[in-house]
Amino acid sequence: MNTSATANIGVVGLAVMGSNLARNLASREGNTVAVHNRTYARTKELVAEHPEAGFIASESIDDFVASLARPRTAIIMVQAGAGTDAVIDQLAERFEPGDIIVDGGNANFPDTIAREKRLAPTGIHFVGVGISGGEEGALNGPSIMPGGSEESYRTLGPILASIAAVAEGEPCVTHVGTDGAGHFVKMIHNGIEYADMQLIGEAYDLLRTVGGLQPHAVADIFAEWNQGPLESYLIEITAEILRQVDPATGKPFVDVVLDQAGSKGTGVWTVQNALDLGVPVGGIAEAVFARAVSSKPAQRAAVRRLAARPEIQQVDAAAFAEDLAKALYASKVVAYAQGFDAIIAGAQKYGWDVRKDRIAKIWRGGCIIRARFLNRIAEAYTENPDITTLLEAPYFARAVVEGEAAWRRIVATAALSGVPVPGFGSALSYYDSLAAERLPAALVQGQRDFFGAHTYRRTDKEGTFHTLWSGNRTEVEIEGSAH
Amino acid sequence: MNTSATANIGVVGLAVMGSNLARNLASREGNTVAVHNRTYARTKELVAEHPEAGFIASESIDDFVASLARPRTAIIMVQAGAGTDAVIDQLAERFEPGDIIVDGGNANFPDTIAREKRLAPTGIHFVGVGISGGEEGALNGPSIMPGGSEESYRTLGPILASIAAVAEGEPCVTHVGTDGAGHFVKMIHNGIEYADMQLIGEAYDLLRTVGGLQPHAVADIFAEWNQGPLESYLIEITAEILRQVDPATGKPFVDVVLDQAGSKGTGVWTVQNALDLGVPVGGIAEAVFARAVSSKPAQRAAVRRLAARPEIQQVDAAAFAEDLAKALYASKVVAYAQGFDAIIAGAQKYGWDVRKDRIAKIWRGGCIIRARFLNRIAEAYTENPDITTLLEAPYFARAVVEGEAAWRRIVATAALSGVPVPGFGSALSYYDSLAAERLPAALVQGQRDFFGAHTYRRTDKEGTFHTLWSGNRTEVEIEGSAH
Repeated sequence: MNTSATANIGVVGLAVMGSNLARNLASREGNTVAVHNRTYARTKELVAEHPEAGFIASESIDDFVASLARPRTAIIMVQAGAGTDAVIDQLAERFEPGDIIVDGGNANFPDTIAREKRLAPTGIHFVGVGISGGEEGALNGPSIMPGGSEESYRTLGPILASIAAVAEGEPCVTHVGTDGAGHFVKMIHNGIEYADMQLIGEAYDLLRTVGGLQPHAVADIFAEWNQGPLESYLIEITAEILRQVDPATGKPFVDVVLDQAGSKGTGVWTVQNALDLGVPVGGIAEAVFARAVSSKPAQRAAVRRLAARPEIQQVDAAAFAEDLAKALYASKVVAYAQGFDAIIAGAQKYGWDVRKDRIAKIWRGGCIIRARFLNRIAEAYTENPDITTLLEAPYFARAVVEGEAAWRRIVATAALSGVPVPGFGSALSYYDSLAAERLPAALVQGQRDFFGAHTYRRTDKEGTFHTLWSGNRTEVEIEGSAH
Repeated sequence: MNTSATANIGVVGLAVMGSNLARNLASREGNTVAVHNRTYARTKELVAEHPEAGFIASESIDDFVASLARPRTAIIMVQAGAGTDAVIDQLAERFEPGDIIVDGGNANFPDTIAREKRLAPTGIHFVGVGISGGEEGALNGPSIMPGGSEESYRTLGPILASIAAVAEGEPCVTHVGTDGAGHFVKMIHNGIEYADMQLIGEAYDLLRTVGGLQPHAVADIFAEWNQGPLESYLIEITAEILRQVDPATGKPFVDVVLDQAGSKGTGVWTVQNALDLGVPVGGIAEAVFARAVSSKPAQRAAVRRLAARPEIQQVDAAAFAEDLAKALYASKVVAYAQGFDAIIAGAQKYGWDVRKDRIAKIWRGGCIIRARFLNRIAEAYTENPDITTLLEAPYFARAVVEGEAAWRRIVATAALSGVPVPGFGSALSYYDSLAAERLPAALVQGQRDFFGAHTYRRTDKEGTFHTLWSGNRTEVEIEGSAH
């Protein structure tokens, strides 16, 4: 039992993410780490395995709280949901005004906003923190996205900075915004991750199916891409996975893995929230749906039995791979543009003062989507925080224009060859929609006015109009009506 | 004032949908219709305008309730939301066990489920009813999708059947399922409507941009399509809209309408719920996103300024139109297949005994997506209610295989010509995903296992596995773990 208040930070919940984060904290100068777990056996095990950490371990929550120096700061690392609320209540009963409760789990941001509201009258700070990088990131340096009050960040910021990944000399942490901003931005991060993985999957599929390459040859291409502008953690591990040989069969690893992808919810949340915000995120949605389609074996078997497969288009593998790199890059720009649009819209709706350039910077290290690419995004938003879309930033505009013809060839070749490219295709259509002089949305407005009197606006004058479709088909102006 | 209980049905809320529905009810033999509105002036106006209806009008809610014969049955036709709850409370205070409160507005189905639960202890039936067909449908015969209890349907069914549209001799109404089933199915109907309109929009855009045709020539093609398997209300009105000449300018109507499409929420709900249900609905999502993109004028202007437009592919307009008809049909099959999958998943989750063939049949008349096509869907589900997807029904499988090459050419041509086809493209990729021998989801599972130890399954044996990626890269089986 320990009752002297000597720890500057505590961790509650010592499963793999929590214990790795606690070890990371303990390894940094200036931190003394208190630890607590629902079952004490786990706490004792962790302390025994890592004497170097100098953990202050407590069996009871009372002793845990007593071991924390003021302002008491505790990070909750338990399964999102009811468990989180139980620990919050335990701590809130014992904490005092100015103390800080941190939720480091994958909470849905409206829950974080509600929890902060609930604790506000007690004077205790509640801070939702998105932590990306998985188990290894938690141990060696994650990308950290804290929300919560400015005041709490004065205490919490230096502690988080001490454990965060470092990218180009800067710790991958920034105060994202108040209340649920951290968990919101972490959610979007995961949504972008879905899109990025799907695009890489399509590139791989095309290189095999159309390019006719074996996994090791595809791995070589990914490894080469990882030396250029596509350099990223996901490209790097893709090369490694494609080189892996299954020890049991001697076959390429990727060929023995069941092709049904799972998911854990944040991709779904991203799309659902983007829909609420009116932000098109086709790249993320198609990635979420692609995993869902893959996990319908009965439908797949039924359609496969009936479908005739088209002839694969003939290509020169090297030229095809060059086209693909450009298509992948352009589609990635679209996915990130859509993700940042969702962040901008969320910040507007929920009143967060989000710095887009800083978000891009803290994603450069520690997290799954870390990539060279993010420097370009940071630069774009530093140069002009008010660009309407990443696609208009000069660097990206140029990259897309240069890659455009290749991108079109890839989507066309995939369509003719029967290779699904929901990610590439959706991204290209998004770009072409933004670039179009006129969209068929005018016809859609006409249809809506025809069957539902939803009215329309005109290109040549202000106002809201309706055509008397079931009458004499003249036009009437709707007075004082919002369109 | 009227206190004799002589009306078999009442309508509360006399805006255009409510008054048209009341007039429709009054015009059918056997119905005596009580009417009530928050402001009495509107009630008096309606009664004065339509003496032929024989309305029983009441200024107070007490008199309105007193004018209803038992079991009292009242349809609420007010703006969805708080207004609905206020009227429910007014009626519930005065109704008795066995009486029926109907919500005929566009409620979100979880609200309907909650409202039924709230009223259940009173013994009053609460029935959410989806009504499609807009103002004209309400007046002349809508497609009606009632949820609620079997018992309430014994009273309500004949009344609704009396006012519903009739398709091939059958009234377009069926008891969809209990509690929120009616509003759920109405929501999916609207989602399919989004997809259908988007696909028609893309076909129109391609005929103009690639086909080089003027609106009146495109109208001729749509009119021709409306004589064949594509026959539908939406195709029919598209031809009419494209023939319309703007009286003010003499230009084609579609060219003076601002190309920014609005929406009212049910499309968003459809996609959000499908995401919760794990059902891929790319066709509907892309349609919702396409409207959102169209409504971002600042982004469009910025990208348009920078983008270089590709050369339009040369085509023979007649052959191109033939290809397009096939692409449109195949993409429509996909959209409906996805919509019905969402209905099946919703029914499973919420415990509704939904008859898919009957849903297809009640959509044949009265509603916006009414189409010859729905007979084929009804046949498919009548023949075999257990098909895993509409795409495996022999008729549709044949149609898609026959149209497949054309579908591929259209998507490829659009990609090369810079015409956005989020709907056609997403549908084709969905089909190709289902038809694929192997999907890159295997690589995605490898990535998830690499960075997050999410584990994977194998093609050649049962169990759940993990590769020690940061160790010696051997494989371990995870005991007792769910994948």
